[in-house]
Amino acid sequence: MDIKYMKRALELAEEGMGKTRPNPLVGAVIVRDDKIISEGFHKVYGGDHAELDALKKINFQGEGTTLYVNLEPCSHYGKTPPCVEAIIRAGIKTVVVAMTDPNPLVAGRGIKILQDHGIEVIHGVLEEEARRLNEIFIKYITTSKPFLILKTAMSMDGKIATAEGNSKWITGEESRYYVHQIRNRVAGIMVGITTVIKDNPRLNTRLPLEEVSHPTRVIVDSSLRIPLDSIVVETASQQPTIIATTNRGPKEKLLKLKDKHVEIIILPEKNNRVDLNQLMIELGKRRIDSILLEGGGTLNYSALEEGIVDKMITFIAPKILGGTAALTPVEGEGKINVDDAFMLNDLRVGYLGKDLLIEGYFKGDK
Amino acid sequence: MDIKYMKRALELAEEGMGKTRPNPLVGAVIVRDDKIISEGFHKVYGGDHAELDALKKINFQGEGTTLYVNLEPCSHYGKTPPCVEAIIRAGIKTVVVAMTDPNPLVAGRGIKILQDHGIEVIHGVLEEEARRLNEIFIKYITTSKPFLILKTAMSMDGKIATAEGNSKWITGEESRYYVHQIRNRVAGIMVGITTVIKDNPRLNTRLPLEEVSHPTRVIVDSSLRIPLDSIVVETASQQPTIIATTNRGPKEKLLKLKDKHVEIIILPEKNNRVDLNQLMIELGKRRIDSILLEGGGTLNYSALEEGIVDKMITFIAPKILGGTAALTPVEGEGKINVDDAFMLNDLRVGYLGKDLLIEGYFKGDK
Repeated sequence: MDIKYMKRALELAEEGMGKTRPNPLVGAVIVRDDKIISEGFHKVYGGDHAELDALKKINFQGEGTTLYVNLEPCSHYGKTPPCVEAIIRAGIKTVVVAMTDPNPLVAGRGIKILQDHGIEVIHGVLEEEARRLNEIFIKYITTSKPFLILKTAMSMDGKIATAEGNSKWITGEESRYYVHQIRNRVAGIMVGITTVIKDNPRLNTRLPLEEVSHPTRVIVDSSLRIPLDSIVVETASQQPTIIATTNRGPKEKLLKLKDKHVEIIILPEKNNRVDLNQLMIELGKRRIDSILLEGGGTLNYSALEEGIVDKMITFIAPKILGGTAALTPVEGEGKINVDDAFMLNDLRVGYLGKDLLIEGYFKGDK
Repeated sequence: MDIKYMKRALELAEEGMGKTRPNPLVGAVIVRDDKIISEGFHKVYGGDHAELDALKKINFQGEGTTLYVNLEPCSHYGKTPPCVEAIIRAGIKTVVVAMTDPNPLVAGRGIKILQDHGIEVIHGVLEEEARRLNEIFIKYITTSKPFLILKTAMSMDGKIATAEGNSKWITGEESRYYVHQIRNRVAGIMVGITTVIKDNPRLNTRLPLEEVSHPTRVIVDSSLRIPLDSIVVETASQQPTIIATTNRGPKEKLLKLKDKHVEIIILPEKNNRVDLNQLMIELGKRRIDSILLEGGGTLNYSALEEGIVDKMITFIAPKILGGTAALTPVEGEGKINVDDAFMLNDLRVGYLGKDLLIEGYFKGDK
């Protein structure tokens, strides 16, 4: 029973995907006599919390009901009054929670207040699913750094492009669509300068929707090699664009880029490259809670070496390209010993059209 | 009902795996009043066919029964008298067949004889499963060339070894065990000379079984570069070992290899390499119906280019190695355009321990 209603709460929560940032995705279901009498979800940052959204619809008449919510109700005054107050006021009997607040400083406080008011609290129902749904929120709220998703798309023999640099299209339409759905949800998209020079990409969100969200572009370019006429620079006034660089780049070029509405973040060097950990801190300060890293291979390897990658999404197309000189998803120096490899955990596999989609997590983090 | 009993027939058939070569894997189930009254399978080349094995156990008293068999019963005198005769003699009422004889010259003849004798024949039940089970037999009987399985094992970023050549162990124990199970079933194992020089492999079957079958080793070595003290040469008297070469190799070395019980097949050249299609014909003549191709990347690519690969088995370990100079499963020249990639069909995915196991077929062949 609990599972069924919690699943529904998670479904509702998902509807806020990409719009609640940096708030979590939360859904709420109110049940009386084994029937849903109200539902709600957190729709947009600053808007009603899910519990409030659901309670409003029944005029706070919650006597004897059970509330299912995927995240512990808040107990503090933020943009809205605390949800625990509304729950107590409505006379709710039982609150079922999937996970506690990920912020260790407040975790359990909401639950305690409810219990102190005689409300029964059950927690841990579908906790894993709930943590996965709010993986971005959990990372950002606990570290102030963005949740970083490394995305690669390769052939069954590990190639992301032929020796000639041809990569159109290794994966199928469904996979490419899915990538744009991710772009629509994340706050930032990150690539290395080589990708910009080689492919001159747009790095925007292309979906057949009325409203799409374009992620902030982050280009890692330690010595400001970016062409002034590249698409990302030319369109920086329409889509926030950040160049992460060191103080090695020419000053005049820096000024020209600023004129074109590109934000420049100057960072310390690490191994002759932009210090990626410092970059994550800077991006976190700018409320970028999530980043899709789309390579290329050199930046991907550096990001793994720096330990900033949380999740990997790999598309594998059922084809073989071959080629000693073909490009692969993660390059750089590479590990010398297999035992030192970066390990992926909690693997999930599925199909997207004819491609395989594999997801996994680094460091066991979620 | 039919499906349940045919599944059982397929299960029985599988027990002959690796022992019936070059005969097919066949299982038979005899059913009366919805109860299995006898079972049989083809155990070893030259032994009783599955139908006979099952019929013997009921002293050919098959009046009114239904026989399930995954391959059309034979109608010709081979090592044993034709099964259709025994079936007719036993008074069987219905014969359910998964697939017809793959040999187009005889396909349907067994079925026709049964029908001419008033026996009802149903065919096509679990045909796809039956075809997959006998994929080796089907290829060999119709082309006289071995069914070739390309096996690769890589990291999630497409690496089969680090830049230093370290590959121990990318995949887990379960995957490596599975490879030896395949080696135990196939007639041959093929590698390129570079693999012998670099890794000095044994290319045998290592399983904790009383009896294992070691495949015939086939080493593709166009100019006889093989070290005389390599393990495969040193042990050629215990495990059949073939070197496929051209007439470029030094004559004295050729004689020395023969002294060490290595069989030498001299083949025409194609693009400065051993003509792999000719090699397949030669191996087919030697009753090698199946080959596991274990690389390296150059030979794998040539095999794909020559169109001799039927199936691919890929293990993907949940780890990332990185490295521009790391080795990948298929190398060689490589395709210039993605559209020219070798396509894999009928993909299947599963887990082996923590690794993924992906199987697919080239050219839609089965």
